[in-house]
Amino acid sequence: MISESRFTRRAIVAEPLEQLEALPVPYLLFLGDTTEAGFAKTAFGLADWAPDRCVGEYGVDGCTVSAGLPHLSPAQARAAGARSLLIGVANQGGVIGAGWVAALVEAMEAGLDIVSGLHMRLASVPELAAAARRTGRRLIDVRTPPEGIPIGTGRKRSGMRLLTVGTDCALGKKYTALALHRAFVARGIDADFRATGQTGIMIAGRGVPMDAVVSDFEAGAAEILSPDAAEDHWDIIEGQGSIFNPAYAAVSLGLLHGSQPDVFVVCHDPGRKVILGMESFALPTVEEVIDLTIRLGSRTNPAIRCAGVSFNTAGRDAAEAQALMEGEARRLGLPVADPIRGGAAFDALVENCLK
Amino acid sequence: MISESRFTRRAIVAEPLEQLEALPVPYLLFLGDTTEAGFAKTAFGLADWAPDRCVGEYGVDGCTVSAGLPHLSPAQARAAGARSLLIGVANQGGVIGAGWVAALVEAMEAGLDIVSGLHMRLASVPELAAAARRTGRRLIDVRTPPEGIPIGTGRKRSGMRLLTVGTDCALGKKYTALALHRAFVARGIDADFRATGQTGIMIAGRGVPMDAVVSDFEAGAAEILSPDAAEDHWDIIEGQGSIFNPAYAAVSLGLLHGSQPDVFVVCHDPGRKVILGMESFALPTVEEVIDLTIRLGSRTNPAIRCAGVSFNTAGRDAAEAQALMEGEARRLGLPVADPIRGGAAFDALVENCLK
Repeated sequence: MISESRFTRRAIVAEPLEQLEALPVPYLLFLGDTTEAGFAKTAFGLADWAPDRCVGEYGVDGCTVSAGLPHLSPAQARAAGARSLLIGVANQGGVIGAGWVAALVEAMEAGLDIVSGLHMRLASVPELAAAARRTGRRLIDVRTPPEGIPIGTGRKRSGMRLLTVGTDCALGKKYTALALHRAFVARGIDADFRATGQTGIMIAGRGVPMDAVVSDFEAGAAEILSPDAAEDHWDIIEGQGSIFNPAYAAVSLGLLHGSQPDVFVVCHDPGRKVILGMESFALPTVEEVIDLTIRLGSRTNPAIRCAGVSFNTAGRDAAEAQALMEGEARRLGLPVADPIRGGAAFDALVENCLK
Repeated sequence: MISESRFTRRAIVAEPLEQLEALPVPYLLFLGDTTEAGFAKTAFGLADWAPDRCVGEYGVDGCTVSAGLPHLSPAQARAAGARSLLIGVANQGGVIGAGWVAALVEAMEAGLDIVSGLHMRLASVPELAAAARRTGRRLIDVRTPPEGIPIGTGRKRSGMRLLTVGTDCALGKKYTALALHRAFVARGIDADFRATGQTGIMIAGRGVPMDAVVSDFEAGAAEILSPDAAEDHWDIIEGQGSIFNPAYAAVSLGLLHGSQPDVFVVCHDPGRKVILGMESFALPTVEEVIDLTIRLGSRTNPAIRCAGVSFNTAGRDAAEAQALMEGEARRLGLPVADPIRGGAAFDALVENCLK
């Protein structure tokens, strides 16, 4: 009566991925016909966090925003070493703008692959599919997980790992992980940023879109994302969702179990009172997140500990933000910092991660 | 810097499913060329739990097992009202046997759809795909989740819900849910068995293969599985995995959050000491599972409670099993029963669920 089908399946999955396929870098950032900076935040994120992976930017008629990079045509970008055009804009609905198609075809004809994090698949546009066939270029949707993700094993891997977790979605887990990675590298530490969402994957040039992985393979996907490494190497892993979010906790728990973090940092927006889009769900406290993360995370790494808290203090003045963070740090007995503000508080957070 | 792509996506998902599509019942159970009963347990489960959905059984040359139903050809089964042939056998690897193909084509030509829970997709066999096109019959893989699963909302639904949870995989969660459903119905209670795995889906005639759902939609899938119902209606939901299983906890937590159970029953094999296939992970205790299930489940249903424990005592004699369960019941202060043995202990468990 008892199905063991999943154990059968375990035996027939593909070979574990030794290494996730890298995206074709460097990129030419595509800005479309965007006139509002908010819709170009993917391009801005790339220009901020991966300038060495971006040779320039390109918009079509009507575009009024800039990521501050040289304006290059696809042919000029190709000549400058670009290997792909990356769609750095998003609109409501995540669709490919009809006005973008000619530019994307031009890019493929110039020898560039196309990289997209949009919800709509590139190959679903007939002109793009035809151009890809004709030119031999690739259409890469970073929301699509790699093939052959194995079932999780729980095997403890070598090296050190840090995971950013949150009281909710969309309050700074990617930014905090990137800032910690930058600070670790600045201290001479061998560290990798491990990306779990589409923007992070574009910045890192590889990664796994954890929310798009079939749930049975969620922990296994997190396991291959941060493979065995040298004992003093750090993987700084971008968190997703929250174990308290009634919609996305499955993603968060699979990522926590598979990541086996030694250290986690809780990301929090002190102005948020309820879960985004779910008015009837109170935001958990930072202490609740620390306690439950240790309880669940200790299943795959009994040494897990909280190294501090990342506050998103956007919209507050500097004095108010500092007073808020100092009060919380005293109350929790942990470093509390806003990585965007940096400073001594952020240094203390970094030091406590490495302790 | 902060992606809100999932919130964009929420706006563009398809309409929530009001009702999951039903499988074409009744079935003709297909036994292939099976000679070992262990490989035909899907057929045996159907014959045991859904005899009203099975008109007969059919094997090819060399088949020596029987589910105890009338032997009918596909044409005879169609004349007796069958709407599909259900593959009731599985082999190591979950592949479609080459010796089965002619019989499956014969079934489609007789007017039957094909239903499969195997890992290998029916349409990946060219002869089956061609026969389906020629005859207009459907090839239904129950491992494939329905289209248009929404993101979870956390909204509390009407009606009562029971979820079976476990200390591990493969120790009786489906069997326990089916036995509780049968006992509820025998007491005149309006109840539905809600299936979450392929065998359960075949038995119920509908359901969601929770382990095949993309993780971002896991809680949403559990929400549509047990929709709003009358206040005295019970959904008895088949559990999956364990929140303590390092590979599958994501599935278990999404199912727990989305199911919003009022009551849960812990399924346990007292002979198992470690997680199946993971020697380095101790099995959690029943108390640990109760405690963590309440803690996590109270996020979407603060009234969640444990009604008792289902023990898998296969392989023990009756006296030993009874002594074991009575000792555990005293220790835990909860009913402990083996649903296969039934009896007064199982009645006490059922009563405590309904209390």
